[in-house]
Amino acid sequence: MSNQSSPLRVAQFGYGYWGPNLARNLYQMPDVELSYLVDRDPQVLANAMGLFPGTTLIGDADQVLADETVDAVVIATPAKTHFALAQAALSLGKHVFVEKPLAMNLADARTLVDLAAERQRVLMVGHVFEYNSAVRYIKSALEQGELGDVYYLYSRRVNLGRVQSDINALWSIAPHDVSIALYLLGQMPESVSCHGAACLNGEVEDVIFLTLHFPGDLLCHVHASWLDPSKQREMTIVGSRKMIVYDDVASEDKIRIYDKGVYRRGDPIYGEYQFKVHSGDILVPRLDMREPLRTEMEDFVRSIHNGEQPQANGENGLRVVAVLTAGQMSLEQGGMKVQLAPLLERKG
Amino acid sequence: MSNQSSPLRVAQFGYGYWGPNLARNLYQMPDVELSYLVDRDPQVLANAMGLFPGTTLIGDADQVLADETVDAVVIATPAKTHFALAQAALSLGKHVFVEKPLAMNLADARTLVDLAAERQRVLMVGHVFEYNSAVRYIKSALEQGELGDVYYLYSRRVNLGRVQSDINALWSIAPHDVSIALYLLGQMPESVSCHGAACLNGEVEDVIFLTLHFPGDLLCHVHASWLDPSKQREMTIVGSRKMIVYDDVASEDKIRIYDKGVYRRGDPIYGEYQFKVHSGDILVPRLDMREPLRTEMEDFVRSIHNGEQPQANGENGLRVVAVLTAGQMSLEQGGMKVQLAPLLERKG
Amino acid sequence: MSNQSSPLRVAQFGYGYWGPNLARNLYQMPDVELSYLVDRDPQVLANAMGLFPGTTLIGDADQVLADETVDAVVIATPAKTHFALAQAALSLGKHVFVEKPLAMNLADARTLVDLAAERQRVLMVGHVFEYNSAVRYIKSALEQGELGDVYYLYSRRVNLGRVQSDINALWSIAPHDVSIALYLLGQMPESVSCHGAACLNGEVEDVIFLTLHFPGDLLCHVHASWLDPSKQREMTIVGSRKMIVYDDVASEDKIRIYDKGVYRRGDPIYGEYQFKVHSGDILVPRLDMREPLRTEMEDFVRSIHNGEQPQANGENGLRVVAVLTAGQMSLEQGGMKVQLAPLLERKG
Amino acid sequence: MSNQSSPLRVAQFGYGYWGPNLARNLYQMPDVELSYLVDRDPQVLANAMGLFPGTTLIGDADQVLADETVDAVVIATPAKTHFALAQAALSLGKHVFVEKPLAMNLADARTLVDLAAERQRVLMVGHVFEYNSAVRYIKSALEQGELGDVYYLYSRRVNLGRVQSDINALWSIAPHDVSIALYLLGQMPESVSCHGAACLNGEVEDVIFLTLHFPGDLLCHVHASWLDPSKQREMTIVGSRKMIVYDDVASEDKIRIYDKGVYRRGDPIYGEYQFKVHSGDILVPRLDMREPLRTEMEDFVRSIHNGEQPQANGENGLRVVAVLTAGQMSLEQGGMKVQLAPLLERKG
Repeated sequence: MSNQSSPLRVAQFGYGYWGPNLARNLYQMPDVELSYLVDRDPQVLANAMGLFPGTTLIGDADQVLADETVDAVVIATPAKTHFALAQAALSLGKHVFVEKPLAMNLADARTLVDLAAERQRVLMVGHVFEYNSAVRYIKSALEQGELGDVYYLYSRRVNLGRVQSDINALWSIAPHDVSIALYLLGQMPESVSCHGAACLNGEVEDVIFLTLHFPGDLLCHVHASWLDPSKQREMTIVGSRKMIVYDDVASEDKIRIYDKGVYRRGDPIYGEYQFKVHSGDILVPRLDMREPLRTEMEDFVRSIHNGEQPQANGENGLRVVAVLTAGQMSLEQGGMKVQLAPLLERKG
Repeated sequence: MSNQSSPLRVAQFGYGYWGPNLARNLYQMPDVELSYLVDRDPQVLANAMGLFPGTTLIGDADQVLADETVDAVVIATPAKTHFALAQAALSLGKHVFVEKPLAMNLADARTLVDLAAERQRVLMVGHVFEYNSAVRYIKSALEQGELGDVYYLYSRRVNLGRVQSDINALWSIAPHDVSIALYLLGQMPESVSCHGAACLNGEVEDVIFLTLHFPGDLLCHVHASWLDPSKQREMTIVGSRKMIVYDDVASEDKIRIYDKGVYRRGDPIYGEYQFKVHSGDILVPRLDMREPLRTEMEDFVRSIHNGEQPQANGENGLRVVAVLTAGQMSLEQGGMKVQLAPLLERKG
Repeated sequence: MSNQSSPLRVAQFGYGYWGPNLARNLYQMPDVELSYLVDRDPQVLANAMGLFPGTTLIGDADQVLADETVDAVVIATPAKTHFALAQAALSLGKHVFVEKPLAMNLADARTLVDLAAERQRVLMVGHVFEYNSAVRYIKSALEQGELGDVYYLYSRRVNLGRVQSDINALWSIAPHDVSIALYLLGQMPESVSCHGAACLNGEVEDVIFLTLHFPGDLLCHVHASWLDPSKQREMTIVGSRKMIVYDDVASEDKIRIYDKGVYRRGDPIYGEYQFKVHSGDILVPRLDMREPLRTEMEDFVRSIHNGEQPQANGENGLRVVAVLTAGQMSLEQGGMKVQLAPLLERKG
Repeated sequence: MSNQSSPLRVAQFGYGYWGPNLARNLYQMPDVELSYLVDRDPQVLANAMGLFPGTTLIGDADQVLADETVDAVVIATPAKTHFALAQAALSLGKHVFVEKPLAMNLADARTLVDLAAERQRVLMVGHVFEYNSAVRYIKSALEQGELGDVYYLYSRRVNLGRVQSDINALWSIAPHDVSIALYLLGQMPESVSCHGAACLNGEVEDVIFLTLHFPGDLLCHVHASWLDPSKQREMTIVGSRKMIVYDDVASEDKIRIYDKGVYRRGDPIYGEYQFKVHSGDILVPRLDMREPLRTEMEDFVRSIHNGEQPQANGENGLRVVAVLTAGQMSLEQGGMKVQLAPLLERKG
């Protein structure tokens, strides 16, 4: 269908909050042709007027899906519509990039992954932080053992506004943190706990505190909210040898690597261990300033061309959905610890 | 025993981490005579040499307790010794100031409160943040309704070092946050959840995430750890009308009051409410720079003279111990939500 | 030539560092038609390809100037070419917006101002900070006497890069600070001193320290450089009643108003006055987030339509050039204080 | 007089702003005996009551000077009294440590240096930043060529309060920056310029901008003021290979070493050089947390014992006074550049 010589014909669905960034990148990529920009809200679509000469702005999704010359679709519509749109597109043999979360439940996510495999199409999820140079730097530092053993990590992703009425902060904001944690640690948590509060309308949680329990008593804690005085996006990874603070909002010090740690010294005295604090230099590494979204889109296009799996592939997205699903179950049951294994067992 | 005309004779037990601050203040107060400084470790006691002329430095606690001219004791020894020392002192008719936590379990705390009532002595706990001018400013703002309804609050109190081998971060660090939350909100949580990780020695939690569930879906979340690259002590209170960030480590902006909030607008459209973000000025109020510890000590002395209850009285300290006890139970049961009411029911 | 009903036909010269921002705004303004985008460097022009459908991209300036349907020109070419281009355009009866500085010497600036008056055309200079909401907030606070008497102000505008080979930091960076200072204080300095260092090539000053001496011993000091580890753009205004720090790079606290001051108390004691420091709240006012460049362009268009003078008019630009000229003379004479009055006397 | 076996008997004059820090260190040093604490203001002296058992608190300076058992004096009185006190003490054969500045003019400074040499006594000046671990780290980095060629440096040392009525900001605050600059660069400036404003009482400059012109077009610029909303103490050193920002007020990032620079690339194109910006990692080195004042006092005591010159010796202090004297001349002459060589020529 697509090959290296002719550009990939892409239709993008949704032009709301994040859509313009996707469209801008797709439009600028030399091996992509942004054929359609689809949004059922004419006022939203009007914002794209004049910006993408050659691209058809259109409200009718079915018409676009029916266009056989469209190779791939990019879905940036509300989360609850992801599944139906992605399913329809895959069924029609199109490659699919869908914004996070992949779906709103595990069964739907599994359906999409299976469908993509069956139709031999690329299914990719918009876990854009897995393409962020800061996150990749941390991943590399972890792989090289620079931090020693990871003791725990915690993340705060809050801001004021972008209030969602249909999905809560767990499904709207925390997918980023879950995606980053799974990517950095390279494993799944065993269980998940989640607390939250629905402050504004009593139904949708505006703030959540999510705890992922990884093997070996390794904790990952996430605080997500759209009800905070300031925009904060920070993650701290505490290792036995070094510690990293990643502040995505910082202009200069996005990553700070602290040569700090606590060591256990010798044998216990009076039955108690002695601990020694080590505190050395701090390094602020130079990071590549490339837009992560561009790298992400390129992985999508490359995967289509090569027939390989992208980093943020369907299975990856499904794992995030599994964690979110467990989190949601915990949230609804007062913070009870929910085991992941039963959820992940594939139904025959 | 004591009156306005002669200074209060005080014996201080413990001269470790926090002890020097207590002793310095006690020594400087005109209506206090620091009679004894007690520490069983001669090396620790040596640090006080020459600093408090007229004060007896001594290792034998019993001898000091037996001195009938001692009106009051100040206890700054390891947490696990608080109960026995306080009990002994109260039994001997002395007023007691004990560093937080009041005791390591609810029964002990109740015993001390009852004993103080019976002996008509002042029992006070070192919840020093209830004497902090920033915390008091926030309390006043809340009482005047400046923030509207409180939606939720969260706190982070972390640093590197001060590793404890005998008590975990819940009992060592979080008492401050619990004390502040109870003081600010003026009520008890209904239930408590707590997660943690014992990274260093596998037994004592170096990091904990504590969630207090107050009536009306009001959440308070606390992150406490001694395994962090930087010292942070901050609390955010999110109200319906305004929001406050309190950064105890900041030199200039200890409190920032954000005239920010999210309002629900009119009737739901398509079944969904519309929310509007309001964002106005930020105010950094001028705060009194008085040392909170001095105000605290003065409350102790004044309460002894007046026969009134201090702010951080025994009942207050007991409530904090109740929350910590529930947190500990939750911690030991994988984060299960623990109800407070059963714990607080007084045994006949 | 132009009126409210038909859009203003504008040609923009120069598409380098700042040009894209100008073109984007001009293109989006409903009452403007960006007819031409002119740059003699084809590679630079190529960057605009596809972004402005309907606009002619062209390298030949003369052809554009000769187009009688062009009502106004916007000049964003290198500083040394400003005069010739502006002169040519005004002579041909076009309105002229020219980026700062208006010209590289006072005589040229005067020629342009006179020519604009003679031809009854708008001449405007790109002193964009006079349209910045933070600067306008400060101006308003000063006018309302909120700061009391202004004691002095100082500014730092530094970054790494944007090294200029043809003009120094005084002419390249400091025009912003001079423009802001003249705007805020509403008067001209009496004399100017300037020191600098040509670190990179020994001829062009990469760093300058400029001191403006206003009437009444009021100092304004400017530090400008393109040889600094970090981007900083800050100005502090010290008044007798309050003080303002304006940090243009800050995301949240662009303006901080300190209720701080030093008061002289009563009569001198032992021949010396006593001073008392007052320190109150800090206010971070909410600012309009509008892009200053858009406001600036609108002032240009409105002035053309109304026949009124824009804020950053030719006389305004000439005053800035006068200060820069005096600064340059001082720089060349080792920092000697240069009086402005002789420079400003109009040659008969 | 003094030897290793018996402690040095020291008398301290002045117990105002800085005096308590000196006294505390002297009192704690094992090889020093703080014999006298002298202040003619009884209220000031009262602040020391009880803090230094064994030290005589006294108002009569003559009586102390006359005590032959006093080996050395530490002078922390108002700047204008430094000379007379130091001269008296040296004449009586005592070693002298005097707070900065050494004297208020060059002739007095020279008299003290000559007198110390003649009497073979240690004369030391309180340039405490030459004992600061951050400054010493920078000195070491410069000596090892880590920064390449130093292009320029600039310093800001401002705060609110500590208003002086007798000496201006040049003599009160800037001595620190001058001392640091001379220490780091290891050479004297050729000329000095200074601007200032006497905002509060019209006679004493509350704010000064000082420019030191070193050989090779190397600039050092100092901004000193006691009329600023915030306390700032920062210095930036711009080198050809790296740049350092030293923030003495920062709790964590006291020194930031930027691997940043601008390189000239190849031959000039069209007569103009091309410059390339390099931007790499930032390093925040771990610094020794020792109190600089203690290191300084130890240098004083060691120099007395060894008969060697301390780092901040009399000649060092004299050089600072020479720069300040030139700065004062420039200040009084409208910022005129004042050459140092004529000032430094020794009168026969």
